[in-house]
Amino acid sequence: MSSAAAPDQPPRPVHFGILGCASIARKLARAMLLAPGAAVAAVGSRSEEKARLFAADNGLDVAATRVHGSYEALLDDPDVDAVYLPLPTSLHVRWATAAAARGKHVLLEKPTALCAADLDAILAACDAAGVQFMDSTMWMHHPRTAKMRETVDDKDAIGDIRTINSVFSFRANEDLLENDIRVKPDLDALGALGDVGWYCIRAILWAVDYELPKTVIALRDPVKNQAGVLLACGATLYWADGRTATFSCSFLTNLTMDITLVGTNGTIHVTDFVIPYEEKSAEFHVASKSSFADLHIGWNPLPSKHVVATDLPQEALMVQEFARLVQGIRDAGGKPEGKWPAITRKTQLVLDAVKASIDKGSEPVEVAS
Amino acid sequence: MSSAAAPDQPPRPVHFGILGCASIARKLARAMLLAPGAAVAAVGSRSEEKARLFAADNGLDVAATRVHGSYEALLDDPDVDAVYLPLPTSLHVRWATAAAARGKHVLLEKPTALCAADLDAILAACDAAGVQFMDSTMWMHHPRTAKMRETVDDKDAIGDIRTINSVFSFRANEDLLENDIRVKPDLDALGALGDVGWYCIRAILWAVDYELPKTVIALRDPVKNQAGVLLACGATLYWADGRTATFSCSFLTNLTMDITLVGTNGTIHVTDFVIPYEEKSAEFHVASKSSFADLHIGWNPLPSKHVVATDLPQEALMVQEFARLVQGIRDAGGKPEGKWPAITRKTQLVLDAVKASIDKGSEPVEVAS
Repeated sequence: MSSAAAPDQPPRPVHFGILGCASIARKLARAMLLAPGAAVAAVGSRSEEKARLFAADNGLDVAATRVHGSYEALLDDPDVDAVYLPLPTSLHVRWATAAAARGKHVLLEKPTALCAADLDAILAACDAAGVQFMDSTMWMHHPRTAKMRETVDDKDAIGDIRTINSVFSFRANEDLLENDIRVKPDLDALGALGDVGWYCIRAILWAVDYELPKTVIALRDPVKNQAGVLLACGATLYWADGRTATFSCSFLTNLTMDITLVGTNGTIHVTDFVIPYEEKSAEFHVASKSSFADLHIGWNPLPSKHVVATDLPQEALMVQEFARLVQGIRDAGGKPEGKWPAITRKTQLVLDAVKASIDKGSEPVEVAS
Repeated sequence: MSSAAAPDQPPRPVHFGILGCASIARKLARAMLLAPGAAVAAVGSRSEEKARLFAADNGLDVAATRVHGSYEALLDDPDVDAVYLPLPTSLHVRWATAAAARGKHVLLEKPTALCAADLDAILAACDAAGVQFMDSTMWMHHPRTAKMRETVDDKDAIGDIRTINSVFSFRANEDLLENDIRVKPDLDALGALGDVGWYCIRAILWAVDYELPKTVIALRDPVKNQAGVLLACGATLYWADGRTATFSCSFLTNLTMDITLVGTNGTIHVTDFVIPYEEKSAEFHVASKSSFADLHIGWNPLPSKHVVATDLPQEALMVQEFARLVQGIRDAGGKPEGKWPAITRKTQLVLDAVKASIDKGSEPVEVAS
């Protein structure tokens, strides 16, 4: 905007390297173009040609974006501050730890790891290197989520949340069910649980301010493909104080993204919590202190609709927030924000417990801490 | 309306006797005033004074409405065709069978009985007497429900329903939690399960066209009062084909009336299924063949809102339908409609299984048939 002198200059953008050209990386490339404080410096793929095509196809400045024909080469690029890592889950430990070891900040696709032990290796590497870690759970960064947080925290309006339901499903086509990395045991062994169940678990934890449940019991009859990868499953989560949450996740039913929070004083409904119906604004519905009209012929008061507009899409806001944290470390000697890895780890712990309960035929499993 | 000759005359209204002056009976008295083909002929209570007050307070024609100082007297009233029975659940067997034995058609409040064996006694009495039986589950009669039925039956739009969630809760005040019949073990021993869980179970069965689940497992940690009556509980229902449904019901959380149906092709949301927010019209939301916009930055197509208007409130439509069936039997020698007792019985069977699972500490319980 201005050519002002150094003291007034905005911080230098965070230079992202995109490690792998997965389909989801297209969305993130756009987000990095939109987000203040971020720039795509490089793309790394197993072939330089693929990286070049990705850059050209996604509106990146082809002259200014370096392309690397291997993941190693991208990590060795000294001009890369941070990597966005959308590789199959089974490759996360190797490449996220390698990135951290080279001093790159890590924005990691979900599910972050196949199990908490793997995640812990990644987090330890980030910790040792003093780099920021964040998982790529975009809806966390939508201003609607902040507004919902305010509502949840309003004990008068909502009270104590006692019951939570979440569903995330989409109807995969035949091609996905045959060929996608998310149904391959050697690539994304957690299947639907890791891909869509992740969001349900995160939303449930978000709703209870990240207090871990005590016990998890998987729903019976999970659906698996021939290789044993989960295509549909669910679980009930139990807290020590009697709270319960239930979620269902599936590749086999219509696109559904529900989170319902039922508190002593109020109820919140969202039906597009992961990806809002439309990019520019998103809704949620709140019923608070709901009672009946006389003779129970209607509700009084009626629930209210809350619409939250956003100039930037949620993934750009995520990139912006991540870049802000990286700038604080890179330029101002700050420390990584511990909230993000802590939230990731809790999500993974619950996911592990659900997986264990599924593997044990829906036996109760205590959540580790 | 007219003094036309006999062949054109509308059928004589069904003369209802209201057996007991429970609060819910006020709503039904209004419904009987509104419903074509129905008339309140008599009110019976344990005191004539109470019955008289009820008639006066609820806009009944005090001169034309007979008041009876005992339930027996009401049942002996030869001018009563049908009784509406809102007594505490523990009294249903006695008074519903007595009504049937006197040839009165029976419109019975829910929960219909403490267990299926009790309900079977009632249904047997109705069957032996050739009288119509119907439970008073009002939302079944809203035109929205018929519209939703059409949508559910549209296999192209919704496909096979695989996952169902239902919540019905309301926040009871201290007085209800201390004094209401619904928290008294000798009156309504099923508590929240019978009062509000009934609706969840019915809605779930409705959604799957009344195919009974195979197994039921109660959620852990049900909440009971000191007398052992359920204040909050829930369960997961499993069908042989892998369908699952989960419901939660409670007297301890904000008013919530959700039913969510997730099918292979479509998703239906209703958040006021038991009592619509407003009396004159009601909504439901359908997402069908939902996919994403390019880059997954929104949904395509968007879900659609369906608004269904109604001239009469759902409880008047229920009374009208019941009266129509009674007229067919009384005036035209027809037989009782078997659909209604069959639906009631299935609801009660699932309710029994949930209760049994709760009593067994959330062990799986097979649903009887």
